[in-house]
Formats: sequence, C-alpha cells, structure tokens
Amino acid sequence: MKVRLVVDGVFEEVEQVTEALHPPESGFYWIDASTEDLQELQHIFNLHDLAVEDCMNEEEQRPKLEIYDAGHYFIVINSIRFDDEEIFLRSLNIFLGRHFIITVTQQKINELRLIKPLLLEEKVNQADRFLYHLIDLVIDNYFTVSDRIEAKIENLEEDILMHTRKSHLNEIIGLRSEILWLKKALGPQKELIATLNRKELRLIDDELQKYFSDIYENSVKISETFDTFRDLMGNLREAYQSSVANRANEIMRVFTAITTIFMPLTVITGIYGMNFDHIPELHMSNGYYFVLGAMVTIGSLMFLLFKKKDWL
Amino acid sequence: MKVRLVVDGVFEEVEQVTEALHPPESGFYWIDASTEDLQELQHIFNLHDLAVEDCMNEEEQRPKLEIYDAGHYFIVINSIRFDDEEIFLRSLNIFLGRHFIITVTQQKINELRLIKPLLLEEKVNQADRFLYHLIDLVIDNYFTVSDRIEAKIENLEEDILMHTRKSHLNEIIGLRSEILWLKKALGPQKELIATLNRKELRLIDDELQKYFSDIYENSVKISETFDTFRDLMGNLREAYQSSVANRANEIMRVFTAITTIFMPLTVITGIYGMNFDHIPELHMSNGYYFVLGAMVTIGSLMFLLFKKKDWL
Amino acid sequence: MKVRLVVDGVFEEVEQVTEALHPPESGFYWIDASTEDLQELQHIFNLHDLAVEDCMNEEEQRPKLEIYDAGHYFIVINSIRFDDEEIFLRSLNIFLGRHFIITVTQQKINELRLIKPLLLEEKVNQADRFLYHLIDLVIDNYFTVSDRIEAKIENLEEDILMHTRKSHLNEIIGLRSEILWLKKALGPQKELIATLNRKELRLIDDELQKYFSDIYENSVKISETFDTFRDLMGNLREAYQSSVANRANEIMRVFTAITTIFMPLTVITGIYGMNFDHIPELHMSNGYYFVLGAMVTIGSLMFLLFKKKDWL
Amino acid sequence: MKVRLVVDGVFEEVEQVTEALHPPESGFYWIDASTEDLQELQHIFNLHDLAVEDCMNEEEQRPKLEIYDAGHYFIVINSIRFDDEEIFLRSLNIFLGRHFIITVTQQKINELRLIKPLLLEEKVNQADRFLYHLIDLVIDNYFTVSDRIEAKIENLEEDILMHTRKSHLNEIIGLRSEILWLKKALGPQKELIATLNRKELRLIDDELQKYFSDIYENSVKISETFDTFRDLMGNLREAYQSSVANRANEIMRVFTAITTIFMPLTVITGIYGMNFDHIPELHMSNGYYFVLGAMVTIGSLMFLLFKKKDWL
Amino acid sequence: MKVRLVVDGVFEEVEQVTEALHPPESGFYWIDASTEDLQELQHIFNLHDLAVEDCMNEEEQRPKLEIYDAGHYFIVINSIRFDDEEIFLRSLNIFLGRHFIITVTQQKINELRLIKPLLLEEKVNQADRFLYHLIDLVIDNYFTVSDRIEAKIENLEEDILMHTRKSHLNEIIGLRSEILWLKKALGPQKELIATLNRKELRLIDDELQKYFSDIYENSVKISETFDTFRDLMGNLREAYQSSVANRANEIMRVFTAITTIFMPLTVITGIYGMNFDHIPELHMSNGYYFVLGAMVTIGSLMFLLFKKKDWL
Ligand SMILES: [Mg+2]
Ligand SMILES: [Mg+2]
Ligand SMILES: [Mg+2]
Ligand SMILES: [Mg+2]
Ligand SMILES: [Mg+2]
Ligand SMILES: [Mg+2]
Ligand SMILES: [Mg+2]
Ligand SMILES: [Mg+2]
Ligand SMILES: [Mg+2]
Ligand SMILES: [Mg+2]
Ligand SMILES: [Mg+2]
Ligand SMILES: [Mg+2]
Ligand SMILES: [Mg+2]
Ligand SMILES: [Mg+2]
Ligand SMILES: [Mg+2]
Ligand SMILES: [Mg+2]
Ligand SMILES: [Mg+2]
Ligand SMILES: [Mg+2]
Ligand SMILES: [Mg+2]
Ligand SMILES: [Mg+2]
Ligand SMILES: [Mg+2]
Ligand SMILES: [Mg+2]
Ligand SMILES: [Mg+2]
Ligand SMILES: [Mg+2]
Ligand SMILES: [Mg+2]
Ligand SMILES: [Mg+2]
Ligand SMILES: [Mg+2]
Ligand SMILES: [Mg+2]
Ligand SMILES: [Mg+2]
Ligand SMILES: [Mg+2]
Ligand SMILES: [Mg+2]
Repeated sequence: MKVRLVVDGVFEEVEQVTEALHPPESGFYWIDASTEDLQELQHIFNLHDLAVEDCMNEEEQRPKLEIYDAGHYFIVINSIRFDDEEIFLRSLNIFLGRHFIITVTQQKINELRLIKPLLLEEKVNQADRFLYHLIDLVIDNYFTVSDRIEAKIENLEEDILMHTRKSHLNEIIGLRSEILWLKKALGPQKELIATLNRKELRLIDDELQKYFSDIYENSVKISETFDTFRDLMGNLREAYQSSVANRANEIMRVFTAITTIFMPLTVITGIYGMNFDHIPELHMSNGYYFVLGAMVTIGSLMFLLFKKKDWL
Repeated sequence: MKVRLVVDGVFEEVEQVTEALHPPESGFYWIDASTEDLQELQHIFNLHDLAVEDCMNEEEQRPKLEIYDAGHYFIVINSIRFDDEEIFLRSLNIFLGRHFIITVTQQKINELRLIKPLLLEEKVNQADRFLYHLIDLVIDNYFTVSDRIEAKIENLEEDILMHTRKSHLNEIIGLRSEILWLKKALGPQKELIATLNRKELRLIDDELQKYFSDIYENSVKISETFDTFRDLMGNLREAYQSSVANRANEIMRVFTAITTIFMPLTVITGIYGMNFDHIPELHMSNGYYFVLGAMVTIGSLMFLLFKKKDWL
Repeated sequence: MKVRLVVDGVFEEVEQVTEALHPPESGFYWIDASTEDLQELQHIFNLHDLAVEDCMNEEEQRPKLEIYDAGHYFIVINSIRFDDEEIFLRSLNIFLGRHFIITVTQQKINELRLIKPLLLEEKVNQADRFLYHLIDLVIDNYFTVSDRIEAKIENLEEDILMHTRKSHLNEIIGLRSEILWLKKALGPQKELIATLNRKELRLIDDELQKYFSDIYENSVKISETFDTFRDLMGNLREAYQSSVANRANEIMRVFTAITTIFMPLTVITGIYGMNFDHIPELHMSNGYYFVLGAMVTIGSLMFLLFKKKDWL
Repeated sequence: MKVRLVVDGVFEEVEQVTEALHPPESGFYWIDASTEDLQELQHIFNLHDLAVEDCMNEEEQRPKLEIYDAGHYFIVINSIRFDDEEIFLRSLNIFLGRHFIITVTQQKINELRLIKPLLLEEKVNQADRFLYHLIDLVIDNYFTVSDRIEAKIENLEEDILMHTRKSHLNEIIGLRSEILWLKKALGPQKELIATLNRKELRLIDDELQKYFSDIYENSVKISETFDTFRDLMGNLREAYQSSVANRANEIMRVFTAITTIFMPLTVITGIYGMNFDHIPELHMSNGYYFVLGAMVTIGSLMFLLFKKKDWL
Repeated sequence: MKVRLVVDGVFEEVEQVTEALHPPESGFYWIDASTEDLQELQHIFNLHDLAVEDCMNEEEQRPKLEIYDAGHYFIVINSIRFDDEEIFLRSLNIFLGRHFIITVTQQKINELRLIKPLLLEEKVNQADRFLYHLIDLVIDNYFTVSDRIEAKIENLEEDILMHTRKSHLNEIIGLRSEILWLKKALGPQKELIATLNRKELRLIDDELQKYFSDIYENSVKISETFDTFRDLMGNLREAYQSSVANRANEIMRVFTAITTIFMPLTVITGIYGMNFDHIPELHMSNGYYFVLGAMVTIGSLMFLLFKKKDWL
C-alpha cells in the first residue's frame, strides 16, 4: 500500500495512512492499495462490508457506483488487456471521498502506472479530477483493444476469402466467445459512466460533467463497436462455412471427374478383353491403335465437355 | 412441520404452532413446513387461497412477491440444483410476517439446511434478516451452477475443436435446452429481487436495502451470464457442425482420392489385357516390368500432385 | 340463444331475453348466444356496430377490452384447442354489463360447458365473478396445451437424437409454424388480462383484482413458455439437420470405403489378366493362391486401417 | 383534377376549384388530384413546400401525419397491391381541411374508386368521415393481401415438404425480400393511425375515435401478421434446405450403392480373367455357372443388407 | 481556411478571421476550416478542448450535438461516399454560433462545394438556415448511396439465382460488413437530428423546426432502409449457400450417374473376359454383338430410369 499526497499533480509519499482521514491544506490523498491492505483500510475509512466483499471476490465484477452513508462512493470498473489470444478484464475498485481516493486491485493494472505523468501535466489537485483521468485512461484502452480486434477480424475475413484453412474455425469460434463475454461486461460499464455523467453527484464537481460526458460518449461507441463485432463474427463464420464447403466440393469434383472420365475407357478395354471367338476388330491390323486413339479421344472429349460446362 | 423460535440466531423448538401468532419478546418464529402442512397453516395464519394454490402446484412457479391484506407477504423463489445432466428448479415458498417467517417446500431444499449455522454466526434476530440470508444463499447457489456450466461449455468447446464426436451433438442440444428453460425462469426472479430492493416495503427494514441491492446485482449478473451462455451454445453448435463437416469431407476425400489414383491403373491393365492380334508391347521382353513401373510412377505422381495441391 | 338467470350459482332458464335489460333482485343474467342471435341482441342491448362486426368476422380476432358508452364492456379472448396435429384458436366474445353477461361464439367452446358446475360450486352471484371464472378456465386450458406441446417437443428431441427419420422434418416445420402463429396471439391476450388486472375498471369489483392478477401471472407464464418453445424448436431443427447429415455421411462413408477397398484388388486382377509374353508369376505353381492371399491381405489391412483411424 | 361537392354522400361536380376555399352550406369538397395539379393547388390552398415535395417524390413515402399552420393536415398513407409476383405500395397523399379533402396520387389507386358507393351508402357529409372510410378501405386491402400471402406460404410449405423443386428457392428468396420490404413500411403506418386514434386532433370529430381505434387495431394485427410471415419464411427456407439436402443425399446414396454392389463382382470377374497357368476352378465343368451364381448371390446379399440397414 | 461573409446567399471573402467575432450588419460569417486551422480558431472562438480533440481524432466520430457555455453548439455529422467497393464516412464538424458557422473537415467533403449555389438560390441570410441546407445535403446523399446499394443487392439476388459464381461470396460478405458498419453510424445520426428537431434550441429558429423535422423523417427512413438491407443480405447469403449447394450436387450427380451406369457394363465385359473352359456364349457366332447390344440396352435403360426418376 502506497499513500501519497498529491498537490498540483506533484506526489509526496505519506507514512501514516491515518493522515488521509483529515483533509490536507491543498490537494488530496491517493491510496494505492492491494486487496491485502483492505482489512486495515476498512477500519480506518469505515468501508462497507459488501464493498469489501466485492473487492475480495476473485470473479470478474459488474461495473457500478454505490453511494455509502460513510461519505464516499464505491466505484468498480474493469480494465482491459488483450494478448492476441485472450481478452482479460481486471477489476479496478475505487473508493472516492472528498479529499481522498483509494484504488484497490488484485493484480497490477497498467493504467495506475500511466496516470502519474498525466496528473503532473494536468496539475491535478482534486480527487474527482484524478477519477476522471483514471477512467479516461481505462476507457481509452478499450479503443486500443477494439482497434486490434477490428484489424484481426479484417485480416481473418481476407484470409478466409483468399484461402480457407481448417485452423480458421478455431480462431473464429475462440474470438467470437471472447467477444460475447466482453459484450456482457460493456453494458454495466456504460451504465456506470452514465451515472457519473449526471449533474447531481455531490462528490463530483459540476465542471467535470462535460468531461465525463466525453467518456460516456466513448463508452457508448465502444459498446456499439462490440455489437458490430459480434455481427461481423457471424458474417465471418458463414464466410468460413461457405468457403470450406466450396473448396471441399471442388476437390471432390476433380476426383470424381477423373474417375468418371476413366470409366468408359475401362469398359472399352473390357470389351476387347472379352474372349468371344468372333470379335472382328481384334484381327484388324491397326485395331489396337484405333482403340487407343478412340480412348484418348473419348477421354479428351469428356474432359473438354466438363470444362466447357464449367464443371471443372 | 417444525416450529422454532429464533433469538440472536439461537434456535428453540416450539410445540404449538399457534404460539407463532403472537410476537415473542425477542426474536421471531420460523415455521419450516411442507405442502402437507398447508391446510392447517392456512386457517391459523389466514393465508390466501391463491397463495396456497400456488404452493400446491406441481409445476415450477414464477418467482414473485405478493402483498396480502392479512399483513404478510407471499414470496416465491426457485432454488437451483445441477447434477451435470439436468438442471432442476425447486420452488421455495415463503410467507413473511412481522415476527414470523413460514417456508413451504414440496421437496427438500439444501439452502434450508445451510441457513442454520449462518443465522447463529450472524446472530439473526429478525424475520426480514432471515429472509435476506435465505435468498442470498439461494442466489449464491446459482453462481456455483453457472460456474459449472461455464466449465462444461469451455470443455465442450475445446473438445469439439480438438476431436469432434457424434455424441457431442446430444450434449450440445441437451445443454442448450436446459439453458433455454433456465433463462425463462431468471427474468421473473430478477424482477422479484428488484421489488425487495425498493425502499417502500413495510415489512423489510430500510437498513437491509443495501443488502438486497447486493443480491439484486448478483441476480442481474446471473441473468447476463445465462444470456451469454445461450449465445455461446449457438457458437458451439456451429463449431460442431463445421468440425463434423470438415472431418466427413476429409475422410471422403481420402477414400475418393484412392479410387481416383487406381482408376488410370485399371485402364492400363485393361489395355494390356485386350486380345488384339497386334499389340507390340506385349512381346517386348521387359514389357511387363515397364508397365508395372509406369503404373507405380503414375500412381505416385498423382498422389504427389494431390498432396502438393493440398487436396489430401 | 339461451338466457339464464344465475342466483348463487343456480341456473334458471328465462324465456324473454328482454327481461335481462333490468337488474334482477339477486344474481345476474347470462345470455349464451351464437353469432346468429347477434342482430336481435344488438337492438336490445345497444351493442356497437364495430363490436358486432368483430363478432361476425370469420378471422381470428385480436384479444381486447373495449369500453362502450352504452354501459358495457366488449371483451374478446381466444379459447385454445390442440388435436395433436394443429392448434385451433376460437374467439370467445363477451359483453359484460353490471347485471348481465353475454357470451357470443361462432363455434362451440368447451369452457362454456365446463363453467356450469364451477359456478354452482363457487355460488357465483355476480357477472364479474362469472367473467373471472370463465377467463380462468380459458387460460388454464393453455397450460394443458402447453404441457402437451412440451411433451411433444421432448419426445421429438429424444427421437431425433436416437434415430432421425425424414418425417421428422415435417413434424418440426409444422409444429414450428403452429407455435409461431400462436405466439402472435399471446401478446395481445396478455395485454387484455393486464387491463382486467388494473384497479380502475368500474364494472369489475376491486375484490377481484387479486384473482385477475393471478390469471395475469399465468398468461405471462404461458407467453414466456411459448417464447421458449420457439427457441427449442430452433434447437430441434438444428439437431435434425446435424443428425441427418451425420447419418448420410456415415452411410456414404461405408459405401465409398467398400469401393475404395476393392479398387486395388481390381488392379491386381487386371495386372495378372494382362497378356504379356513374359509374366513370370503366371507360371509359378502357387501363383494363383499367392495372389488370392495377397488380395485378401491387402483388403483386410485397408479395412483394419480405416477402422483404426475411426473412418468406419 | 376533379372537384366535387359531397352532400350526404351524393356527388356534384364543381367547376372552379377556388369554390372549395369557402365552406359549403352542407357537406364538403373532395378534390381528387394528380401530382400535375399540385402547383395550382399549392397556391390556392397554401400547401407547404415540404408537403408538395413529398407528393412529387417518386420514392415510396413514409406514412405520417403533419399538422400545418395553414389549417389543414397532411397525411401520407400507402395503398397496397399484390400481383402474385410482387407487392406494390403506392403513396396516397391527403390534405384534410375542415370542409375539404384533397387526395393526391401519382398513379391510379383502386380505393379512390371504391370509396364512391360507400360514401353514398353511409351518407357521408363530413371530410373527416371521408378520411375514415378511405383509410379503412386502404387498411382492409392489406388483409386481402396478407390472406393471399398466407395462402402462398402455406402452399409453399406443403409443396416443399412433398416434393422440393429447385425453383422453390427463387420463390422463397423473392417472397422473403418482398415481406422484408413491406415490414419496413408497416411500422410507420401503424404510428400514423395511432396518431389519428388520439382524442386531441382538432380536425377529427371525437365521435370518430372509436372508428379509428378499430382501424388501429387492424393495422397492429397486420403488422403482427407480417412479423409472423417473416419468421415463417425463415422456417420455410430451412425446410427447403433440409428437403433439398435429403433428396440429394438419397439419390447419391442409390448411385453409390449400385457402384458399391458391383465392385466385388468386378473383382471376381477379374480373378477368373487372370492368366495363371494353374487356376483349378477354370477347368471345372460348371465353374462358369457357379461363379455367375456366386456373383448374383453376393450382389443380392449386399442389396438386401443395405436395404435391411435402411441405407437404401 | 476561408472566411466569408454571406448576405442573402451572396459570398464575400473576409481577410481577418477575427472580424467574425462581431455580428455583421446583415447575414453571417462562414468559416470553412481544415483541422490545421483549429488551433488558431480555438483561441479566437473559445472552442472547448474536448470539441477540438474530437475534430482532430482520425477515427470516425459519433454524430452528436453539444451545447457549450461559450455560446455556440458543436455538431458532428458524417458525410457518406460510396465508390462501389467500399462505403466511406467522413466527419463534418460544425460550430454553430448566432452569427457565424465554422465547418471543420479533415478531408474534402463534396457537400461543402454543393452548398454554394444552393445558398444563393435560397438567399440564405442566417447561420441556422445554412446549417439546415448543409445537413439536408448530407442526408440526401445517403439516399443516393442507399439507392445504389439497393440496386447492387437486387442485381446480386438475380445474379445468384440465375448462375451462382464463387466470387459472389466475396461480394456478399464484403457488402454485408459494409452495411453492418454503416448501420452502427446511423443510430446516433438519427438521434442528432432528433435533437435538432426539438423546439427548444436557442440558436435555431422555431420556423426551421418543420424543415429539420423533414430531415429527421428522412434519416429515420434511411435507418429503416439499412435495417432492411441487413436482413436482405442475410436472405442473399442463404440464397447463395443454397444455390451453390444445389449446383455442386447436380454436377456430382451427373458424374456419379455416369460411373454408376458404366459399372454393370464393366462387370459384363469382365464376365466374358473370364478364362473358364466352358462358357457357351463365347462360342456363339453372334455372341459378341449380342453382348454389345445388351450393354447398350442396359446403359440406356439405366439412363432413362434415372431421367424418369428425375435423378438427372
Ligand atoms: Mg457484491
Ligand atoms: Mg476471457
Ligand atoms: Mg478519452
Ligand atoms: Mg480521448
Ligand atoms: Mg477503430
Ligand atoms: Mg450475421
Ligand atoms: Mg448462422
Ligand atoms: Mg397462481
Ligand atoms: Mg430441466
Ligand atoms: Mg451473496
Ligand atoms: Mg456474495
Ligand atoms: Mg464465473
Ligand atoms: Mg451464434
Ligand atoms: Mg374490428
Ligand atoms: Mg393453425
Ligand atoms: Mg387459474
Ligand atoms: Mg390455477
Ligand atoms: Mg409444464
Ligand atoms: Mg436456434
Ligand atoms: Mg420530405
Ligand atoms: Mg417491391
Ligand atoms: Mg375495416
Ligand atoms: Mg372491418
Ligand atoms: Mg388471415
Ligand atoms: Mg428461422
Ligand atoms: Mg470526445
Ligand atoms: Mg468501410
Ligand atoms: Mg432533403
Ligand atoms: Mg428532400
Ligand atoms: Mg430507394
Ligand atoms: Mg436471414
């Protein structure tokens, strides 16, 4: 657990977490805690049992804002990470007070590292502005991920239409599952930010409303993008199925056509392999060559006919 | 039927059910009844005909809360059980009064056993707190089931993509049916808990609101999870269909390719099996070996060509 | 047309329909009419042109409640019948006044027969209570039908997964059509009963509200059940398609495998059927038996290989 | 352009369109115009630019009602026609004033012909009643069309399940496109009539409300019917696909079975066509007949086996 | 950046952008800027950081209207372009003040060229009228695009049903992706215009309401059209799949039928190619011709049978 006093974006480490109980002369306290620190913090800041329970839960949490009588808000939001194979959501739990903000995470979250230079640049002096920049970072990261998913979908589409491979099925099914799970998380996230975007929240400055409104717009955009992704994945799966069927049909067609072309030739050789006493052709001096020629002719004609009918 | 006086989570058996008509000095009465006891209870507690009819009904009930003039609420909620083959819902009927709570079940429900140590630990002294812990247990159990379904879906997905078996179809169709039926039950359950989550209910302490709000959040999460399950099952079914088609195509391709490769060889043997008087090759001393060699060469070339074209 | 005075559930035939214009001392009048009687009734009870037009219409009617200035309600509800092949809906038209109820039907409706003993048992003395019991009967009948459809769907599911038959397609397509048509009728029926379930209707006693609320709950349940049926039918259709494809693939696989196994044997016989002057094997004393043995061996090995690869 | 004074349903031709500017002693003016007459009418009746633009537009219009300051309403509704191949919608533009109604069409619309006898029979004396009867005719015509589409769908269903033809695909795809386009037009039409069905419209008599409510109900019914049609067409397309696949599989099965049955016979003839010095059977006196018998037996047994296994 | 004073639709170039800060005697200023000019404009007109950020963003923007304290609105709308391969959306950013309008674009947008003659013709003298005409042009262009997409879909439908080609798959999948992306953009655009269509906007004259209402209607129509397009593309994809499957089945059927017809003939030649000592037919003088005749007969009969059974 790190306790910092932030004044005009400048950080100063604080030894005693209890200092954060009283408003500083200027700036605000940021307590960057892990779930292990929660028990201690619960006593000091009077955190609600249910909020602590949510932070400890190993499961992915539903984004939400809850207003507690103790004078702070409890906010849960999910940070996203995409390692090209799987999409990970990591809960970022925030307790927002008038002059302090507590961030609680189970695993390291990149945005908590990126926020530092940003606060300095923007000379952030208030806990609610800190909240805005943190959530802005979290949401902007969804765009990075959605751009990479979009690129992946487009590559997949091109790839499938050019030369379908069996492994494409795994990719489609896997990516579609990931998108379906993610879509589930985006709905409540949008709702959470809509709540922050309303005027009446006592702990959030009215000046910030336009800024949260900007984030809200982004989170709607992300949600619409993932809806489109789901439909595109359906489109892709159908492209895959058609492509694979087309290719299978074509190969079988070639195989079957070869068999079909050779079939009459087999019968011809069979005819002149029969042991009848009287088969006049057998005794013609060029019979053999005539028959070979006939066979080549018949085979070629069949091949050309199939070609012309566009069956091959 | 068991009648108990609960004081600070401590249970005390009561002989006469009619005692429960009057408020105890401290604590509340819990009457754990089966449907056979209903007739007796109906007279004593003035239960409504329609509520009793619902309890007796063999069919799965829609979760709901009904407020009766007689001064108690009638609550129906479904407890879930999953034996890896089928999902069972069992109706848990609750009559909540100011100083008593009646639970009515047709079959044994696990949560009514699990509640006892919990009440002791939490020193529960009021009927509405009992209700909260009971419903919390019921809803938490849905997470257990949904985690197992999720694991089952993920195994199935992996299994299908690795080596599809015909029996997968039964599993997919069966599990999808189960999920569709369950989804039907989750909508009204969510509504019921939303009702409990509102401030104005006279028999439920305002202090409890945050707690019912926590349960509500969980029931929304469960409902969203099952929506995702339904979509994942669609994804899975399509994975199955594609996998099965791919596999069938591949096997047929191998069979057909073998036939196709042997077809020209048949014609060659046919040619030298013809009985023409003049077939010069027949009299060449190495003719037989040349032809055998030619046949091996042609067959091999075809095989290699098919391989190279990725048709095999 | 039958005109009856109902007092405490006891029926008494009345000769003159015009008697029903004036409130009886006790009880109410029930006029059980067919569409042919409408013209007469329209004059007497001042029924609205549009209501009469709806009763006469051969088409299935949308359930609804309309309040007319003449001091009565016009209610349309659909009675259901299922003869295992097709689902039939029959319009039941009701004019509800303060002291009379007119039921108008084009075809016999079973519920109008079943209501008589029920009225006697419940000692019904008011037109609105009659209405409640009639609609309760109509809606309860939907459960009977939905239970039979559910059983049919479950049988079909099991049947299809065990041994798919071509006739299953007809059953699926037919039943799905029936369900789609029925679903269309359930939405407005639900709305109608929601209207009856509201407090403000002047002609319906507030005491009855809880009872209509019970029916409303049932009609919601039915509607949700039919939504689930539609999804289950989609599930079933996909099960059918996969099963049929699996079976077709397997049979073709066996046929093709036989051909494939015999193909090399044909070539072998072809080789030793060639007429080359010098084929040493032909003159070996056991050549014939060696070749036969080789053929059996090759065929068996291919068969075993295919088996082992799970291609057969 | 035809200008008529309508009194109690009786028509009287009027020479000067400007007469219609002033209320007649009794009745109302009906101006039956084509789009060419619009410029003239725009000046006289002070029609809004945007309304005129809509009338002139060649595209299908969205049904709507617009209230203009000039004291009239502008109503657009679509008349339907179905020639068994395609569904046509034709815009019917209406300007409704207190004592006049202007109908503007680009093409002849049947309902404007059918309205005349109706007005006479109903002794229509007011512009808003004219409007009611006109819209009633327009909407009733949708039932005629929807009944014919329903019949077509049912025939198609039966036809497809009995003997699928390739041409069915064209019919399904074409009809489905038509239904999808039509569905798009029905939503706003329903909204338009809902607007007419509200009490507050100044130019429409409150007495007419019940009548417009009847039309509204019909337009909801039509809209629900077309939703069902769309689902039925999906059902049908899947029936087609399954039927076609079943049929193709069966035919291929027969072909392949014949090949498979003859394959071992070919090998047998091949065996006794080999030129080994020592093949004892060749010298048995009944060898030839034994072998022929064996071949018939083997072929028949295979055929019976396939039949028994229900593979043929 | 071009700064123009527009008076009664007549343009006059202005040198100093700062002139636009003060209301002109008559008319309004139009500043046609690119994103490079934004920094300068931001200082002069006090544009909000977030609005400038949106203009600079390379990504496609969500259409919206935002009201800033500085006394102007910020409007984002997407202009559409369709080059028969892909649909492009280009953000058109607009700052609307009382006496000025600033248009900001990253790329050239055709509508900004087309607006000039229009303003002259309509003698536009106010910034809000300019806005109306600009948005009207933008939306009308969607009709042009949707008409071309509709034509493309209809051609594709006809083409696919007449003679399916493999390349159709690419067209369907590609067009469907484009439509899905576009649909995503149409929702917020509709909302934006609905906002403009409300009475209370201070900077937009109430007189203009009817005109924005006309545009709103058009944007709803476009949105409904694209919903229909999406459904039609689904229809088309299924048509493609069925057509391709039908064609593949037919070709395979012909190939397989040929093989099947020749199979018995092969056996016949095999029979008379056997080397039994006693095969009486071999010594009949016309045996060879009889057999040839029998083969032709059998082949023809099989062919006719298959034809008659409609298997070919
Ligand atoms: Mg919680
Ligand atoms: Mg994941
Ligand atoms: Mg941002
Ligand atoms: Mg940003
Ligand atoms: Mg992007
Ligand atoms: Mg799709
Ligand atoms: Mg699909
Ligand atoms: Mg009930
Ligand atoms: Mg079950
Ligand atoms: Mg819980
Ligand atoms: Mg919990
Ligand atoms: Mg889980
Ligand atoms: Mg899916
Ligand atoms: Mg009617
Ligand atoms: Mg029916
Ligand atoms: Mg009932
Ligand atoms: Mg009941
Ligand atoms: Mg049931
Ligand atoms: Mg389905
Ligand atoms: Mg217009
Ligand atoms: Mg059309
Ligand atoms: Mg009508
Ligand atoms: Mg009618
Ligand atoms: Mg009909
Ligand atoms: Mg369907
Ligand atoms: Mg922004
Ligand atoms: Mg694009
Ligand atoms: Mg326009
Ligand atoms: Mg226009
Ligand atoms: Mg068009
Ligand atoms: Mg579709």
